Amino acid sequence: MYRSHNCGELRMSNEGQVVQLSGWVQKSRDLGGMTFVDLRDRYGITQLVFNMDDNEELCEKARKLGREFVVHAEGKVSERSNKNPNRPTGNIEIIVSKLEVLNAAKTPPFTIEEETDGGDDLRMKYRYLDIRRDAVKNNIIFRSKLALETRKYLDSQDFVEVETPFLIKSTPEGARDFVVPSRLNPGQFYALPQSPQTFKQILMVGGMDKYFQIVKCFRDEDLRADRQPEFTQIDCEMSFVTIDDILNTFEGLTKHLFKHTLDVDLPDFPRMDYDEALKRFGSDKPDLRFGMEFQELNDLAQNKGFSVFDSSELVVGICAEGIADSYSNKDMKKLTEWMQRPQIGAKGLVYVKFLQDGSIKSTVGKFFDDDTLRTWGEKFGAKPGDVLFILSGEAEKTRKQLNELRLEMGRRLGLMKDGDFKPLWVIDFPLLEWDEESERFHAMHHPFTSPKKEDVDRMLNGDHETMKSLKADAYDLVINGAEIGGGSIRIHDRELQSKNFDLLGFSKEEAEEQFGFLMGAFEYGAPPHGGIAFGFDRLCAVMNGQSSIRDFIAFPKNNQGRDMMIDAPSPVDQTQLDDLNLKLGEIETAE
Amino acid sequence: MYRSHNCGELRMSNEGQVVQLSGWVQKSRDLGGMTFVDLRDRYGITQLVFNMDDNEELCEKARKLGREFVVHAEGKVSERSNKNPNRPTGNIEIIVSKLEVLNAAKTPPFTIEEETDGGDDLRMKYRYLDIRRDAVKNNIIFRSKLALETRKYLDSQDFVEVETPFLIKSTPEGARDFVVPSRLNPGQFYALPQSPQTFKQILMVGGMDKYFQIVKCFRDEDLRADRQPEFTQIDCEMSFVTIDDILNTFEGLTKHLFKHTLDVDLPDFPRMDYDEALKRFGSDKPDLRFGMEFQELNDLAQNKGFSVFDSSELVVGICAEGIADSYSNKDMKKLTEWMQRPQIGAKGLVYVKFLQDGSIKSTVGKFFDDDTLRTWGEKFGAKPGDVLFILSGEAEKTRKQLNELRLEMGRRLGLMKDGDFKPLWVIDFPLLEWDEESERFHAMHHPFTSPKKEDVDRMLNGDHETMKSLKADAYDLVINGAEIGGGSIRIHDRELQSKNFDLLGFSKEEAEEQFGFLMGAFEYGAPPHGGIAFGFDRLCAVMNGQSSIRDFIAFPKNNQGRDMMIDAPSPVDQTQLDDLNLKLGEIETAE
Repeated sequence: MYRSHNCGELRMSNEGQVVQLSGWVQKSRDLGGMTFVDLRDRYGITQLVFNMDDNEELCEKARKLGREFVVHAEGKVSERSNKNPNRPTGNIEIIVSKLEVLNAAKTPPFTIEEETDGGDDLRMKYRYLDIRRDAVKNNIIFRSKLALETRKYLDSQDFVEVETPFLIKSTPEGARDFVVPSRLNPGQFYALPQSPQTFKQILMVGGMDKYFQIVKCFRDEDLRADRQPEFTQIDCEMSFVTIDDILNTFEGLTKHLFKHTLDVDLPDFPRMDYDEALKRFGSDKPDLRFGMEFQELNDLAQNKGFSVFDSSELVVGICAEGIADSYSNKDMKKLTEWMQRPQIGAKGLVYVKFLQDGSIKSTVGKFFDDDTLRTWGEKFGAKPGDVLFILSGEAEKTRKQLNELRLEMGRRLGLMKDGDFKPLWVIDFPLLEWDEESERFHAMHHPFTSPKKEDVDRMLNGDHETMKSLKADAYDLVINGAEIGGGSIRIHDRELQSKNFDLLGFSKEEAEEQFGFLMGAFEYGAPPHGGIAFGFDRLCAVMNGQSSIRDFIAFPKNNQGRDMMIDAPSPVDQTQLDDLNLKLGEIETAE
Repeated sequence: MYRSHNCGELRMSNEGQVVQLSGWVQKSRDLGGMTFVDLRDRYGITQLVFNMDDNEELCEKARKLGREFVVHAEGKVSERSNKNPNRPTGNIEIIVSKLEVLNAAKTPPFTIEEETDGGDDLRMKYRYLDIRRDAVKNNIIFRSKLALETRKYLDSQDFVEVETPFLIKSTPEGARDFVVPSRLNPGQFYALPQSPQTFKQILMVGGMDKYFQIVKCFRDEDLRADRQPEFTQIDCEMSFVTIDDILNTFEGLTKHLFKHTLDVDLPDFPRMDYDEALKRFGSDKPDLRFGMEFQELNDLAQNKGFSVFDSSELVVGICAEGIADSYSNKDMKKLTEWMQRPQIGAKGLVYVKFLQDGSIKSTVGKFFDDDTLRTWGEKFGAKPGDVLFILSGEAEKTRKQLNELRLEMGRRLGLMKDGDFKPLWVIDFPLLEWDEESERFHAMHHPFTSPKKEDVDRMLNGDHETMKSLKADAYDLVINGAEIGGGSIRIHDRELQSKNFDLLGFSKEEAEEQFGFLMGAFEYGAPPHGGIAFGFDRLCAVMNGQSSIRDFIAFPKNNQGRDMMIDAPSPVDQTQLDDLNLKLGEIETAE
């Protein structure tokens, strides 16, 4: 037997018991004739004590223990004279009578502490050491708990978890697939799923009624910070539902998860039109932890002789509270430059300072008199000490830029508070996006999304311009400015699905080749259905107020898609390629 | 709203309520002025009634409904005059007042009934129709319930579910990997995991203590009946454990699963040495639902002048009860031929019939007198009416052949009863198998399995012959003759792991290249650990007394590894291959 208890559970009530513990040496200290060793496992830390007077040999042995040695100790639970109130086991210690080193350890390349001195690359290469750190360990345990609560809740709502296949078919729509050569079918390939979308719809046609799955998905994209080639979704689908049924069900799930993992009671989620979200916040995933809503100034600021505004489609601003007097000219210049970086691309930044002394200072002071500027301030409800930031230009672009500024000011003013959760349903997305470059429509959500019922006729019979105005029964769940989930009511009619593929530029043959099985299924009694998918990695991060998903993934890949620990991907033997009927191309291989 | 209730829940207590139901038309009957429609969904079937006298138009509409049409009906719950006691909703029917066809359906290519007339290929191509059948639907729902109970139990035992990566590194050991070309690292490949073995061990080094995962694994093998290229494991690992800790934990899991899905109380699981299992049953996965144990006859049957026995390493038999008088010479001849098929390869089959009239009839009657044959019968406890079947030859081969006969007789005599579950731990497997052909050792379990503690010294210091006798701390869970799970205590010491790779024919460089990260991890404080993996698909099948795993998988592949519904694998665009720096080889592609 290696242990009778773990390192987190002994209390004063165990005093006098002889116990066995196993774990890692967190640290050891020699104080006079005593040696103290902190023994750590997943559950906590317990202090071991060795006394030179009582057992010299054992104490010498303890003094040789290095950091991260794995040991087994037997001893008696005793009350500590010097209690540690910060540790659940802090009232007791173990007077050790037997000690066995189960495994020695080299000195770790970084410290196993809350705050480590290890850089990202080192932490990824020695992930097994990184996982011993509370910060990472607790994230991984949180993830497990969140997954279990998800399953318990959805089970209580009659959902069935169904595993859909990983070896499926490549489709050129959407992001790039990872492909898997088939040895038994030379020259042919499977693809790894970007999502189980078509399979969950097939399950609805199969009468499964309520489906979910917590499932890995794959996208071969050029990696950006905080994107992973494999990621996890809570994937769900329901039959015989309207949009309300779905929003209510998954609002219920989300509330359950917050309650049962964080003990947070979320309020009912507001719902906001896509159009309204853009107008008020310049984003389809507004962070509602703070206001700073957009106000449009076209009526108050145009036709007053300032040609930049007059020639703009939109003049729009936000009001940042309390910084009029503290933000210097230099600060304002820096902020303007920040907005002018290529990532944002604003031409300039107009501001109006309402100083505490009642005076007004503005970059456009020579075009507008104070009275006019005050009418602007009134529109924002600006008080002395506040600043208006104003952008102008083409509406869509300007809103996007102002959204960036709003978020930046939210950060600077400390308005994005940890532990404050502001969920929101964004609904009524456009069905199609016109892409000027490729001169075709793209699906705003995906090709299986249904237009709103009242738009079906216009979709089947309308002209090209009509298509741009179609609304979809699509929705996103947004929490604190992060898109947590998204979904839609699906098309369940062959004709409508076929029309959608037409609009998206599929030829009849391509549509049939790639999605014929689904359109075929629609002819055998497909029920109305819809669903949603949650980004599970992101949900974990947002619930813990962390910005990176990486530390909620046990073995993440780096920005080049490499697993630094196992060193993958890697070259394979030529015989393996021969079996697959494949040859490498001309590009020099990396090794 | 599409429904207020599902099709399985209405009872007499709902009488008088106006309800909304949606579902599929199972069948409809016209009886005089009445039309009856059975409306089906996942939850059950409810009878809809239309009356020509009350509403001719509605009744005409109902009469046009075809099988598998999807409809929405509103009506009043009424008591049935002609009750159906076989159906939970059989006391009521719905007097329909509104009917809407939500989707029409073509006539299905096979019947949606318990017993279908669809062949395998048709059922796979139209899987969405197959899933509507209770037989398949209930299997998939069972699987979901089993997974949830697994998670609940392991969570209650402090296990953490950790997702390990799917894009890992190819290793030539074991079965063939599916590989995934990396676009960002040209010429390099990921592999899909055959199991999360090394990652779960890394998690133990990382202090995760108790890990599990219900996870897809992949093997690119030539497919045999009832093998799938992707399959699901319950994968588990624990730290600071001995073999007893593991067997007790997962015996607990198995009992929990049987209790909470089938309401079956399993008894404590017996444990049997690998050697004993082979000796008594000729198999390391004996079906203990029936006896028919092997008895060795070397002492009683050799050196009596029958050269076939005398020259054999082993003479061994089984006793089949009650068939001496009913099995004719022709039956015996057929059985002998069955044993002589190449799949089994017995040279012949000796039998001794103890007839009801007290006489003895045997194929070896001219070599052995009745008194001798009676001593054989006594060894088996044979009664009048029983038959001994005896094989002889090289021990290992003969036991294998007799195992096949034992199973066949068990089937014929109806001894493998549905609902009878006989679990067994088989323990103390050999560590290594010597392969004559490749002149090297293979790992009996896998290269990470630890020798038993008492064999470690012999392994590190023994000669070649010693290696053949090493025993491993490896174990299998067998239920009703099916291997449900297997695992081992792992090596956690770099030197021992390195020695094992040596024995398995790895060069130092190969071992380092492929598993250097794991051996490296062992140097930073690896705890003693061990684990197990359950074949989840097989567990589902065995618990339901079914021999095929295929109908417990929502979307299985056929024996050529093809998904018949979506038609995968399939060719991909040349541009996709160019992106991956790949060219097809010389073999003609299939399309």
